[in-house]
Amino acid sequence: MLARTDRTTFRQRPQRGSFDPAVIAAILDEALVCTVAFVEDGRPVGIPTTHWRMGDRVLFHGGQGSRLAKAMAAGAELCITATLVDGMVLARSAFHHSMNYRSVVLFGRAVEVTDPAEKEAAFAALIDKLAPGRSAAVRPVTAKELAATRLLALAITEGSAKTRSGPPVDDEADISWPVWAGVVPVMQARGEPVADGGGEGASSSRGETPWNHASV
Amino acid sequence: MLARTDRTTFRQRPQRGSFDPAVIAAILDEALVCTVAFVEDGRPVGIPTTHWRMGDRVLFHGGQGSRLAKAMAAGAELCITATLVDGMVLARSAFHHSMNYRSVVLFGRAVEVTDPAEKEAAFAALIDKLAPGRSAAVRPVTAKELAATRLLALAITEGSAKTRSGPPVDDEADISWPVWAGVVPVMQARGEPVADGGGEGASSSRGETPWNHASV
Repeated sequence: MLARTDRTTFRQRPQRGSFDPAVIAAILDEALVCTVAFVEDGRPVGIPTTHWRMGDRVLFHGGQGSRLAKAMAAGAELCITATLVDGMVLARSAFHHSMNYRSVVLFGRAVEVTDPAEKEAAFAALIDKLAPGRSAAVRPVTAKELAATRLLALAITEGSAKTRSGPPVDDEADISWPVWAGVVPVMQARGEPVADGGGEGASSSRGETPWNHASV
Repeated sequence: MLARTDRTTFRQRPQRGSFDPAVIAAILDEALVCTVAFVEDGRPVGIPTTHWRMGDRVLFHGGQGSRLAKAMAAGAELCITATLVDGMVLARSAFHHSMNYRSVVLFGRAVEVTDPAEKEAAFAALIDKLAPGRSAAVRPVTAKELAATRLLALAITEGSAKTRSGPPVDDEADISWPVWAGVVPVMQARGEPVADGGGEGASSSRGETPWNHASV
């Protein structure tokens, strides 16, 4: 379990909260993007970015000129927020409408990873998050490309998950109100892959799609 | 167009950026959740929450005890981040993998809306965002429920949208690399509604579902 700290103590609906690393990891793994917030000139800045996880660290990357990567590399205090929407909860009363969701909020500082072998392995893990097994099939990263990209790692030590699931919870007096009530599921779906036409000699039709696009 | 400010000047890939209010509005309207970042004790905090839009304002709500709603009502500097993932961009080279996305980042301070009629209209708009037309069919909000919920409004004045779309952009030398390349579309889909069983006398089977769940 992650330690409970002042800023991760649940003030609202603590029954929806969790400090379980496995719960946190599963949400991070399913989410394709997160928001990284940091403080700049005393004001909050939240930047959307891709993240991925290796063990108990969340990884991020960015170009050498990236404002976010620079702030992260400089050791700025960060807050990472990843959210998956699972459904719209339509209650009988206006007041009890809600959302089903799974979210993670993490706090901490990132460290920059500069070892080329470690960076290469991390970027392979990112590609395999998008399409399992794909990293072995693509044109490998070069030393120059590795150097052009910063890799940042944040240890998962302070943070929590919060989730809501299940049907609406209406007041007893509203149960006979004549309106449909229930949950409209929402999910991040994947569509049919669209092959890149490529240029002369493009390989689009040669390679096999190495992932299961039907999985959500 | 929204005014360009120091913190909304694009440093990376400015061709992906937009200050067009219509582009910003469309992304905010499609996103069901966002991250609201604020500064607490000098450190960033990013909280996931539901938002909706009325004209040139983004609206938020929370219980009277909510940490986020309190910070917003107190006039904290905020950064709002909403992101829609549209696809995974699978290039031939590891380096050129990317994501297709549409995101909005807004800056500013919220004001609390306390007028009961204005609050009631705003909460109706939130319900209609989830299920168009539904607000007229549900059990209306009571004065006590209105008082228990804070409504916060942020004017859309400083911020921008950023988007990527289209196929991977590989180096010319990689075009013949023997791997599938293209885009795997990702979308926020809605599933078959799941009716709430309700209690004795539940109305689940009586009301009609007033929205088109097949729309994405």
